[in-house]
Amino acid sequence: MKSDLDQLMEKHDLDAIFITGPAQHNPPMGYLTGPIHMTGGDLIKKRGSDPILFYNPMERDEAAKSGYTTKNLAEYRFDELLKISNGNILQATILRYEKMLTEFGFSSGRIGIYGKMDVGSAFEIFSGIQQKLPELEFVGQLGDSLMLQAMSTKDADEVDRIRAMGVITTSVVTKVADFLTSHKSKNGILVNSEGVPIVVGDVKKKINLWLAEAGVENPEGTIFAIGRDAGVPHSSGNPKDILNLGQTIVFDIFPSEAGGGYFYDFTRTWCLGYAPDEVMDIYEDVLEVYQTIESELEVDALCNQYQDRTCELFEEKGHPTIKNNPQTQEGYVHSLGHGVGLYIHEYPRFSSNVKEDRLAPGSVVTVEPGLYYPERGMGVRLENTIWVRPDGEMEILADYPLDLVLPVK
Amino acid sequence: MKSDLDQLMEKHDLDAIFITGPAQHNPPMGYLTGPIHMTGGDLIKKRGSDPILFYNPMERDEAAKSGYTTKNLAEYRFDELLKISNGNILQATILRYEKMLTEFGFSSGRIGIYGKMDVGSAFEIFSGIQQKLPELEFVGQLGDSLMLQAMSTKDADEVDRIRAMGVITTSVVTKVADFLTSHKSKNGILVNSEGVPIVVGDVKKKINLWLAEAGVENPEGTIFAIGRDAGVPHSSGNPKDILNLGQTIVFDIFPSEAGGGYFYDFTRTWCLGYAPDEVMDIYEDVLEVYQTIESELEVDALCNQYQDRTCELFEEKGHPTIKNNPQTQEGYVHSLGHGVGLYIHEYPRFSSNVKEDRLAPGSVVTVEPGLYYPERGMGVRLENTIWVRPDGEMEILADYPLDLVLPVK
Repeated sequence: MKSDLDQLMEKHDLDAIFITGPAQHNPPMGYLTGPIHMTGGDLIKKRGSDPILFYNPMERDEAAKSGYTTKNLAEYRFDELLKISNGNILQATILRYEKMLTEFGFSSGRIGIYGKMDVGSAFEIFSGIQQKLPELEFVGQLGDSLMLQAMSTKDADEVDRIRAMGVITTSVVTKVADFLTSHKSKNGILVNSEGVPIVVGDVKKKINLWLAEAGVENPEGTIFAIGRDAGVPHSSGNPKDILNLGQTIVFDIFPSEAGGGYFYDFTRTWCLGYAPDEVMDIYEDVLEVYQTIESELEVDALCNQYQDRTCELFEEKGHPTIKNNPQTQEGYVHSLGHGVGLYIHEYPRFSSNVKEDRLAPGSVVTVEPGLYYPERGMGVRLENTIWVRPDGEMEILADYPLDLVLPVK
Repeated sequence: MKSDLDQLMEKHDLDAIFITGPAQHNPPMGYLTGPIHMTGGDLIKKRGSDPILFYNPMERDEAAKSGYTTKNLAEYRFDELLKISNGNILQATILRYEKMLTEFGFSSGRIGIYGKMDVGSAFEIFSGIQQKLPELEFVGQLGDSLMLQAMSTKDADEVDRIRAMGVITTSVVTKVADFLTSHKSKNGILVNSEGVPIVVGDVKKKINLWLAEAGVENPEGTIFAIGRDAGVPHSSGNPKDILNLGQTIVFDIFPSEAGGGYFYDFTRTWCLGYAPDEVMDIYEDVLEVYQTIESELEVDALCNQYQDRTCELFEEKGHPTIKNNPQTQEGYVHSLGHGVGLYIHEYPRFSSNVKEDRLAPGSVVTVEPGLYYPERGMGVRLENTIWVRPDGEMEILADYPLDLVLPVK
């Protein structure tokens, strides 16, 4: 949580954190500023102090909404710095950062850096500042990010925002189910009133429309994959595929608040009309594993143990898993879940390689076991997003039936 | 144009260019790969040679669509590099890049770096590689980017894609005009069939719906600003504002292809029902300046001269401009236009500070003069996107009437 930042900075031996870029579609910045319309700026937070937000003059009002101390970047007179630098924008930018950091007492110490900038600019600017301020050490964090650690547990306001996205997500899922079941079949294929087959692309277009209507974004797209594609977890579905009755459809939908805010993550597997026995078999195995794991979740437990447990349960039912065969493309082939927040994938991680991540109070995680048999033309995944409440209870943030078969006339 | 890259690399004294990140929403990468669904990868192009594209194994097919030589990143065995690095992801990443660069002969020379990565990662990774390969010099370019220079002129395929976005943009503008004129007014306010006022938020929701329906994105939002907000060029409009008849509405719409592709940029100013005399006066001034500038555009001319000319024309009509008063918030307060492509704002630039940018053949630019009087509650801007054709003709890429008044019953 944001309230953990000072403690995490101490643990990471950082005197300050520095974040750059817009407030939208830039999770580290948006995490601290809240949902404001700032197209670019810089934020510095000293350990133990509130952040200072540097803004462009046209965005004064938006910056003020953050509630932090703000500083107008125009006061550093970029035009004059540009003259001193003989028109060199990079040198003028470095000089401006030198002035900003020095003015607020950040000319020495270890500063963690986060946010969004063209890679070339980031490399030159931070290298350049460090040359000017040799007592200062910039620290970039890969795979061990303080920001991701803070973001791994959510406060009540964040959970409300994720829950609201869950309500929108399941309302769109309801519309998709109604759309599909409102049509008839002809020769085992879903068709419209003129007898023309409905294809995956039609459904995805509807999904995008309904998400736009609800005022949310779909930055990562939607998985709506049928048959063999349903058996390939990373396939998002072929727009031209027709909807055969009795084939598995993996429908994984993960929209976010407009402006790059909080995500929700949700999967159901559907069969139109009926489910053949072999599909029903793997569906029931996934359902049972989903329900078992959900019932076994305990606050503060290590996440990787649930990945191991899921493999164990699937192996007991005779399915290959990545535990007994890391190269398998069949059976259970991915990890059980992940944290969800301003990124669709964040901490805690459920991979068996990650030893330290826990179901800490405030975590919001997905649980999404699945079975994949591409050669048999089928796959099943069931996923809910679950809040590990401070009282230790597990709460699914948006309810929706787990049913496999969608009736079709 | 892409075909200028080798020549530009020579001019910038670069032996190679290196681009990292996804192919979508990452213009430098998307520019070279074309519209493929690659969520992450690296591309290196040696001067005089075709690029090599490094891909993650699950995205082999997408990488192949680029038509370039491809290389599977899995062959560098990150798991083994991680062991050598005692689990340190940053060190393993640096080792992998060292192997990649050395294998393809890039362990020395000057390499320009571009693309998308967290700033902390960019700083640490490129600093780390440079330490390992001291003969190599990474170059980040601010304000003088080879990629932006190449992108500043478009080939026929790019112009077709921008034109197609123009057709979609103006079709949505038509729908917005039809939506507004299909309603009646009551007490000087636009209302729905139940007599409830229509607000800016209603219109924006429709715009997003129609853009989604057309399969395009709206990553930067839409300006639909009325009254005082129309007089503030950076205001996007207050969702709660009612639509008073006779007030200026600045409608600036700039959607992009799905996946972060080519943009179109378009502005009209509307008055519902009627235009008061003072509005008509500034509208006619803007229209005349727009038409004069459009008629004076000449291939290979310096862009800044048109900014100066626009100021001169507005000053002749008695309006303050940023030329005679750089601090003015009234009159003509911004620059005349900008290049449009994979970024909404790119080269050529029309600012009077930029001395070198020209209307080179293949440029696609906006022309968007405007007048702003926030204290008088009004603003007018007219904007088209224009292609500087190789034959020297100027072509507006999507036609739409410049009319001010939308009739309302």
